[in-house]
Amino acid sequence: MAEKRFFKSTGPLPIEELAKEFDCEIIGDDSLLISGISSLDDAGPGEATIFTSSKYKLKLRHSKASACIISDKDAPLAPQGMTLLICDNPYATYAKMLAKFYGEQMSNYEISSKAYIAPSAKIAKKVSIGPGAYIGDNAIIGEQTTIAANSHIGSGVEIGKNCKIGPNSVVQYAILGNKVILHPGVLIGQDGFGYANDGDQLYKIEQIGMVKIGDEVEIGAGTCIDRGALSDTVIGNGTKIDNLVQIGHNVQIGRSCIVCGQVGIAGSTIIEDGVVIGGQAGISGHITIGKGSKIAAQSGVMNNVTPGDIIGGTPAMDIKMWHKQSAYLRQAIKRKTKEDK
Amino acid sequence: MAEKRFFKSTGPLPIEELAKEFDCEIIGDDSLLISGISSLDDAGPGEATIFTSSKYKLKLRHSKASACIISDKDAPLAPQGMTLLICDNPYATYAKMLAKFYGEQMSNYEISSKAYIAPSAKIAKKVSIGPGAYIGDNAIIGEQTTIAANSHIGSGVEIGKNCKIGPNSVVQYAILGNKVILHPGVLIGQDGFGYANDGDQLYKIEQIGMVKIGDEVEIGAGTCIDRGALSDTVIGNGTKIDNLVQIGHNVQIGRSCIVCGQVGIAGSTIIEDGVVIGGQAGISGHITIGKGSKIAAQSGVMNNVTPGDIIGGTPAMDIKMWHKQSAYLRQAIKRKTKEDK
Amino acid sequence: MAEKRFFKSTGPLPIEELAKEFDCEIIGDDSLLISGISSLDDAGPGEATIFTSSKYKLKLRHSKASACIISDKDAPLAPQGMTLLICDNPYATYAKMLAKFYGEQMSNYEISSKAYIAPSAKIAKKVSIGPGAYIGDNAIIGEQTTIAANSHIGSGVEIGKNCKIGPNSVVQYAILGNKVILHPGVLIGQDGFGYANDGDQLYKIEQIGMVKIGDEVEIGAGTCIDRGALSDTVIGNGTKIDNLVQIGHNVQIGRSCIVCGQVGIAGSTIIEDGVVIGGQAGISGHITIGKGSKIAAQSGVMNNVTPGDIIGGTPAMDIKMWHKQSAYLRQAIKRKTKEDK
Repeated sequence: MAEKRFFKSTGPLPIEELAKEFDCEIIGDDSLLISGISSLDDAGPGEATIFTSSKYKLKLRHSKASACIISDKDAPLAPQGMTLLICDNPYATYAKMLAKFYGEQMSNYEISSKAYIAPSAKIAKKVSIGPGAYIGDNAIIGEQTTIAANSHIGSGVEIGKNCKIGPNSVVQYAILGNKVILHPGVLIGQDGFGYANDGDQLYKIEQIGMVKIGDEVEIGAGTCIDRGALSDTVIGNGTKIDNLVQIGHNVQIGRSCIVCGQVGIAGSTIIEDGVVIGGQAGISGHITIGKGSKIAAQSGVMNNVTPGDIIGGTPAMDIKMWHKQSAYLRQAIKRKTKEDK
Repeated sequence: MAEKRFFKSTGPLPIEELAKEFDCEIIGDDSLLISGISSLDDAGPGEATIFTSSKYKLKLRHSKASACIISDKDAPLAPQGMTLLICDNPYATYAKMLAKFYGEQMSNYEISSKAYIAPSAKIAKKVSIGPGAYIGDNAIIGEQTTIAANSHIGSGVEIGKNCKIGPNSVVQYAILGNKVILHPGVLIGQDGFGYANDGDQLYKIEQIGMVKIGDEVEIGAGTCIDRGALSDTVIGNGTKIDNLVQIGHNVQIGRSCIVCGQVGIAGSTIIEDGVVIGGQAGISGHITIGKGSKIAAQSGVMNNVTPGDIIGGTPAMDIKMWHKQSAYLRQAIKRKTKEDK
Repeated sequence: MAEKRFFKSTGPLPIEELAKEFDCEIIGDDSLLISGISSLDDAGPGEATIFTSSKYKLKLRHSKASACIISDKDAPLAPQGMTLLICDNPYATYAKMLAKFYGEQMSNYEISSKAYIAPSAKIAKKVSIGPGAYIGDNAIIGEQTTIAANSHIGSGVEIGKNCKIGPNSVVQYAILGNKVILHPGVLIGQDGFGYANDGDQLYKIEQIGMVKIGDEVEIGAGTCIDRGALSDTVIGNGTKIDNLVQIGHNVQIGRSCIVCGQVGIAGSTIIEDGVVIGGQAGISGHITIGKGSKIAAQSGVMNNVTPGDIIGGTPAMDIKMWHKQSAYLRQAIKRKTKEDK
């Protein structure tokens, strides 16, 4: 439930207007005013809810919501008197409707006098910069971008339009596109982890590449992306990265990938477009993960992955093979236990 | 050894007073003055030490400590001349005695003029706020709470009494109980990781829940806790979470759980009371981990866990089964190596 | 390629001077001026590149670089007209030459008026302190050390000479040697994770040790190092630690170790000199990892490791044994699949 202290609803909005904007059919009372969106459990009169899984049909039946975003197929499960917003993809409709009710409502842009902004930095119009933020020499900040309190934008960094840089994040040696979201504590552009052995001494290798981040990329709290050694570390348009992910120097991630929490990707690896990587998976350096492949959580990937493959385990293999191995071991122990008796 | 530059001892304190307060029996010199507590190796004359494991009986014999917290059973292992503080649970007694000698001795509360505090924020008495801290609109800070330098308390956030918010931590969209400790760099309340697919585009799902944290919760450095999508992310009273842990949106953790370093818990999972989760374990989303169960380090938990179970491995199974599988494989390779010869 | 907005080259430099300083033999035009160093792909006329792997011989043949750092053995692979810098260890030479061209060129030291510096702190000459940095009571900062914006140096902390403390990092209860590099968001010296059970209550154990960090240690972004409980957490000279690593209380790491990203080391474990630990490996508490041993990525190490051993898997075993187990399982499934038909 959207606590009023944190989230302001733009509602109430007429259900007819919502149905029109989001291409839904109304079954029921088309004169309703919708005040906000809430879960099946929490929604009350005047609110809309969403139904996507028959697992929750009992909750739907007892929900006090006035309206529900639902598919044609599931419509019969709704209780009498509930007005339905019928659509093909309820989850996507819900996402768009939520954004309508609770999306960013920033209106007053302010640059705090408690921020440090280098005189040579170029700050566009309608930019917000919080107290304690640091904007280095020659940094460029695009229109309608927000730099939250105590974040650090290093010298020469360029940030596009409509970006949101979370509190206490650090961006150095990087160029960011438009509509990029960095959550709090994101660390971008620090030195990669590179040393040369000479006898028994380790020489630090200066890292002189940078980080390039495309449009509409979202990067989770505490995630680290190192800059390139000689060439660049690259994150493609529309890719979404969760919290506490580690991305090594010279990694190239394609477009619209999904990288879940605590994943680690070692240096110089290439992740092609549309790859999905489950939580805590680890990917070796200098390999290529083919387009549209899926990597199960906690996998250890040591070799190239063919486009479209689904893999799991350590070392990672075809996911069916991995399930077979687990089953094989379970049976072997069962057999052995019987024999031992 | 407590370096004086960092830790001030409230000692010396009479051993008789300590024995009385912490319910110990004194064997030896009950007129001793104890100046502080140190390890078997480091403790010198005037100091107390602690003995809990017979593994260290040689160290005990050579310790220069004047006194030792020890169980009745282990007392004969102590060297002659050492005064003993006999008790049932030496480790717990040690914890309490340490707190007596070195526990928080804050006395002067100060609000830095270098902090940013929104005029609408409500700051109770005896609050400390460090330089560079950010306190947003309508935030509420309870009595005797410390907000360290450069930390960020977002708009509307409520923090209870006697809390310690570490430097450079970020708290947004959250309500914290009393006596909560956040270590440095903790990141709480950022958006959960949620997208809806519509064709080949990912729509961000606005996250309009919050984070609720109970009393006496401790959260380790760099740990991330996302806020709920529609309902809330919840951490129960007395739960202790180590460093670099990732907790997804809508996760509910019960009371008095222990979550070790680098654990990842995916969205909407329920962890019941008293669960212990070993380091680097990963727990899938939308499952329930039953009361009092124990999960071994690095496990990959994909299914519900029955209360009280002890599990390990990936995919996680009964811990004994897991040990059997490891042994089975070791033997199979040994046999095969012999055959191959 | 070193973007000019981020990296200034000290070049152009005469190739003869470079050859002399870095002990190379020149084959080709010894009157060349080298403007900078770039990759085989990116290097243009006037630039030097590096060749270390025959995997890239095609790239070498088409490189537009004027000069190449290369071994005697590989020299015949270079295209005609390219001037060669022949040396025994091209990678180490490259590291040193990069430092010559792009290494730290700090010249103006400045202490920001937006920093908070306790009056009792001792700040040496030629120190830089960024806006929003916090320097606590009695902290000691050595010559030519840089404390970046919004970082936090706690009371009593001592930092040596020529150190670089990255933005938004936090150092408490610690003593650092010389030439230490902390990347952004490093968290050092917070409480270890220690509780004593007394009945069903958890008592927090005050952590009264500290963190000691040797010379030339480098610590990656977001990495956490807890201070000791009674004795200290120690990191030896020349050890390099990557991003998002978790190091528990009382861990002792020797000299010249390499600890890759997202590794976790539990409390009181001893890592001897020259150990290499692969990414995401987890190491249990209270064990000893012998000198010069190597631990594969994602391993789960539960027992002491003999010096020089190479181990992998969970629970970790000899790496060859681990490979055999993987092969054995692959074959077993293949056989079983055939039988099932």
